[in-house]
Amino acid sequence: MKKLIAAISGLVLGALASTVIFADFNGNNNNNKNQSSTASNAQKVYVPFGQKDEYYLFASGGHSGQMFIYGVPSMRHIRTIPVFSPDSATGHGWDKHSRELMGEYNWGDLHHPAFSEKGGEYDGKYMFATDVANNRAAVMDLKTFTVKDILEVPNTGGPHCAAFVTENTEYMFLPTRFAVPFGHDYATLDEYKTKYKGVMSAVTFNEAKQKLNVAYQVALPPWSFDLSDAGKKTSKDWAVMTTYNTELATTEQEINASQKDRDYIVLFNWKELEKMVAAGKYDTVNGQKMIDPAKHRGGIYLVPTAKSPHGVDVTPDGKRFIAAGKLAPAMTVFSFEKAFKAIKDKKFAGEQEGIPILDYESIMEREVNPENALGPLHTQFDDKGFAYTTMFISSEIVKWNVDSGETVDRVPVQYSPGHAVAAEGDTVSPDGKYIIALNKIAKDSYLSVGPSHPESMQLIDLTGKKMEIIQSVPVNPEPHYAQIIKANKVKPIVVYDKDTKRPNSIWNQKDAHISRSGNTVEVNGIAMRSKFIFDAKAERKDVISVKEGDKVVIHLTNIDLDQDITHGFGINSYNLNMEVQPGQTQTIEFTAKKAGTYPLYCTNFCSALHQEMSGYLLVEPKG
Amino acid sequence: MKKLIAAISGLVLGALASTVIFADFNGNNNNNKNQSSTASNAQKVYVPFGQKDEYYLFASGGHSGQMFIYGVPSMRHIRTIPVFSPDSATGHGWDKHSRELMGEYNWGDLHHPAFSEKGGEYDGKYMFATDVANNRAAVMDLKTFTVKDILEVPNTGGPHCAAFVTENTEYMFLPTRFAVPFGHDYATLDEYKTKYKGVMSAVTFNEAKQKLNVAYQVALPPWSFDLSDAGKKTSKDWAVMTTYNTELATTEQEINASQKDRDYIVLFNWKELEKMVAAGKYDTVNGQKMIDPAKHRGGIYLVPTAKSPHGVDVTPDGKRFIAAGKLAPAMTVFSFEKAFKAIKDKKFAGEQEGIPILDYESIMEREVNPENALGPLHTQFDDKGFAYTTMFISSEIVKWNVDSGETVDRVPVQYSPGHAVAAEGDTVSPDGKYIIALNKIAKDSYLSVGPSHPESMQLIDLTGKKMEIIQSVPVNPEPHYAQIIKANKVKPIVVYDKDTKRPNSIWNQKDAHISRSGNTVEVNGIAMRSKFIFDAKAERKDVISVKEGDKVVIHLTNIDLDQDITHGFGINSYNLNMEVQPGQTQTIEFTAKKAGTYPLYCTNFCSALHQEMSGYLLVEPKG
Repeated sequence: MKKLIAAISGLVLGALASTVIFADFNGNNNNNKNQSSTASNAQKVYVPFGQKDEYYLFASGGHSGQMFIYGVPSMRHIRTIPVFSPDSATGHGWDKHSRELMGEYNWGDLHHPAFSEKGGEYDGKYMFATDVANNRAAVMDLKTFTVKDILEVPNTGGPHCAAFVTENTEYMFLPTRFAVPFGHDYATLDEYKTKYKGVMSAVTFNEAKQKLNVAYQVALPPWSFDLSDAGKKTSKDWAVMTTYNTELATTEQEINASQKDRDYIVLFNWKELEKMVAAGKYDTVNGQKMIDPAKHRGGIYLVPTAKSPHGVDVTPDGKRFIAAGKLAPAMTVFSFEKAFKAIKDKKFAGEQEGIPILDYESIMEREVNPENALGPLHTQFDDKGFAYTTMFISSEIVKWNVDSGETVDRVPVQYSPGHAVAAEGDTVSPDGKYIIALNKIAKDSYLSVGPSHPESMQLIDLTGKKMEIIQSVPVNPEPHYAQIIKANKVKPIVVYDKDTKRPNSIWNQKDAHISRSGNTVEVNGIAMRSKFIFDAKAERKDVISVKEGDKVVIHLTNIDLDQDITHGFGINSYNLNMEVQPGQTQTIEFTAKKAGTYPLYCTNFCSALHQEMSGYLLVEPKG
Repeated sequence: MKKLIAAISGLVLGALASTVIFADFNGNNNNNKNQSSTASNAQKVYVPFGQKDEYYLFASGGHSGQMFIYGVPSMRHIRTIPVFSPDSATGHGWDKHSRELMGEYNWGDLHHPAFSEKGGEYDGKYMFATDVANNRAAVMDLKTFTVKDILEVPNTGGPHCAAFVTENTEYMFLPTRFAVPFGHDYATLDEYKTKYKGVMSAVTFNEAKQKLNVAYQVALPPWSFDLSDAGKKTSKDWAVMTTYNTELATTEQEINASQKDRDYIVLFNWKELEKMVAAGKYDTVNGQKMIDPAKHRGGIYLVPTAKSPHGVDVTPDGKRFIAAGKLAPAMTVFSFEKAFKAIKDKKFAGEQEGIPILDYESIMEREVNPENALGPLHTQFDDKGFAYTTMFISSEIVKWNVDSGETVDRVPVQYSPGHAVAAEGDTVSPDGKYIIALNKIAKDSYLSVGPSHPESMQLIDLTGKKMEIIQSVPVNPEPHYAQIIKANKVKPIVVYDKDTKRPNSIWNQKDAHISRSGNTVEVNGIAMRSKFIFDAKAERKDVISVKEGDKVVIHLTNIDLDQDITHGFGINSYNLNMEVQPGQTQTIEFTAKKAGTYPLYCTNFCSALHQEMSGYLLVEPKG
């Protein structure tokens, strides 16, 4: 068996070295559809005006740093929500609150989105996401679709596997893709084995305080951690994550990190880790509680699996976890029950870096190897016991029976799917209606927009006898993963409350005022259809007059408590813009460095007299 | 007549002061469609995989600073192209070239897009756009869909009317929405009448040098200029633009700039202005050639029109220009021929600020006032002599006969259309197939994404007996205007040429090298599937080692000359990311301020071993 996998892996690597290859087209793809099937697909995805989509799709925006929201089945792009990167359309990164959340960073690499869960179901309250580029986690409130907190996680080099939340949102786990010395300290790569570490961070969300927090961290070997999933039901206290580069390669990973036939799934019990923290079984590293699993045993185990796995996914019933081989052609089905038994019986096959290794054969249930399917990356589930695995190299989704391993159906996708996402797919009860292939390479699928192409998402109908692609849509770079939630679970507000106790909010036109304290000018103003009022007592209420060098603080309340009446506030030539949603108060701070005359205006179309909603910032020259 | 307009205007203002109102629904809207019509519409907009959209829609992104590209008729969002705001997904604003183009600004308010034209037809070569926020113009090359130049235009406060290009792209004109003193100098608003100016800038594009340039400027009264259009055919040497605030209000424009019954259309002859410049008839103001129309006559004229017009649009045959009243309920059709005759005959009705005023009655052909239509903003055209005007307040598009003024058809839209855009609509030969309503208020049309809603675009089929909305799609804030071009006119490249003479490009793996000069470390590296090579001779070719405080310059060439194989280059915790398209060389510069160990990696999924495409930046601490 081992030899076979190694031989096939060699073939796969050969194929990769040249270029990606694509599955042959067959009757399943839309290209050869007859007219009536096209018409039927058209109707399946068409949502006439007056009706609404059935699901939200939240797709990570990758190195755009943002989150893309689509409607399913129409696959219409509803909105891009800024998370880790500034967005002048909304003022994210300009207003004081979001500017402070963003810290020193102007971008992020948003990888995996995860809805908050209750009892293993998406509860529609929050969305979490992580930033591989700058080691951050974020939480978005789905009442407002805005970011409530961003946390920079110390000691970590790129939390790629994250975020997957536990069954009741107790934790999200952020293991690192890149090993770095604690605190990003300087160390040459000759010291990789001793000084570099992989770190798994357990992050909690305090809903009352709307704050993220690192509960504890675990110091792991300097491997790369790729993807993860939380356990469900009987495995709910556990989580799993994949590794690669257990070779400890320090250069040319594309060759050196693919030498061994086996890497690991890391299996950990967060309840046990929690107990260790409570018992003081940790070291403090850069202010964090760091558990050393070699010193404090019983929380973490290794499961050998086919080399360089990408995804590891827990079945909806929580009984199995499935590793996708990436450089092997197989999916491997493991049993939680068998793993728990092996752990209980201390039946180990050695250890590495002080972490016990479980015996592969004794917990592995099945290696699933669909004919000519290459590059399995990630598995999703339906409500009938079937698994759907993306095949990056053979560009298809394979439907198979988790119990038997039997291949049931296959559908070619265009092209090179990374992840796929099923409707309510990461819950304990997937819907089984749709799956969407998140394809990395669109090539010539759409009108060209130059050498840099969009990615592509393909909506697949699961309700028929065979899987059928019913819509293909381009998408900005770059969805790495996504989640699909029933639309009726999400309950956004329409306007912000008229909170008369909120600091700096002004609700009555006559209360708008400008005050000065030393070199600071503070404005408590109002935005309303169709004017700004900064100083109710002034001859010109819509003018802000300051002196060159003054610090200017503007609090602006939108007193139009009507649906969809958002105002903008931009200052010409002053590099400033923000948005004030109905009922919201936003604050912007800047130093009036340039003397002169600067128009200010509403940047978000608000009424027929929007064009007239303007005023001036007058900056009197020094001395 | 005058009284009637004034009375109706009063009503309109009353309506505006409360809230926007909406047209009654009737059988025309999709809400009440029977099943067969819905099915038919679904098929009209469905583009099966393997086929492509017929048109590109380029929609301005407003205060996002970006350009949105959609396919028509599918209305799928293909790509957001960054223009005035940084975009980490592509590295726009990080790589040296785009960073320099962006100057001191991190955002823009992208208003009107305009394709380059030849003989009055879109030629598919370039797209121009303007930034109201920071007084800039940009040009995008449609071979690559990237920005080639950004020009900051001095002496101007928000070029809102722009950009509309002349028939052979000789000029685009950028008149200002906000009056400011020349050079944004400080002046109180008591000095508005004397010191503040509206300025129209004539901008040229040098295709060989790929540079924008201000040819000349015209000093206008401190009015606000709203929209503009270039002449066509017999009027090709002319352009028109609308004004408001001819009242010279300096505060509360929503009331004070709507006092007069009439504002103006400004009519100018750019050939005459060109001659003035050639004859030295200008003053030099902050380095610009500034024409004073009171001193140098014969280039500029005023046409009285119903108060606060928004759009002014030239008919495809170039014979008429049509003003949309905004605060009057009427469209006014003017004759270029009559205007030219009046100018020739010097038949003026006085002058203002030294600019001759044409007699309204003698050049006006018709006031068009469809029953209960309120808030006309902008007019587009088809191939059969019909005009289509958006009604912001009554939320509809009215189709009318330009020759007779007769209303032919009306369709309610949801809700509050600003502009509309017809297929090839600003050319001398519109296609007449589609028009898209760019609605400012989506309200509850789509799944909610919080209090801040998307805008909405509605695709209207013009080929049937009646106009019919066949698709509605949400869109990010905020399309102010758009243009639609036949897809086969645009010829993007697939990969960049392998240009062996291009400075800093490295095409051979063994040529990658790192050199040091003083405190500057220069890297000439390669990105390829699936690795970085920075120093071919080093033990670890994918590592960049520098000292704290070094200036680091990285030139990176993507040597994968295959379609859609774009690489990214991000450095963990260093706030840096850029994209390198196939065959492209990009440069990024930064100072290594933080000592330590920082992983670097490919941020744009490129192959099955993308995950392994990484290395390290090692920054050795000082002393």
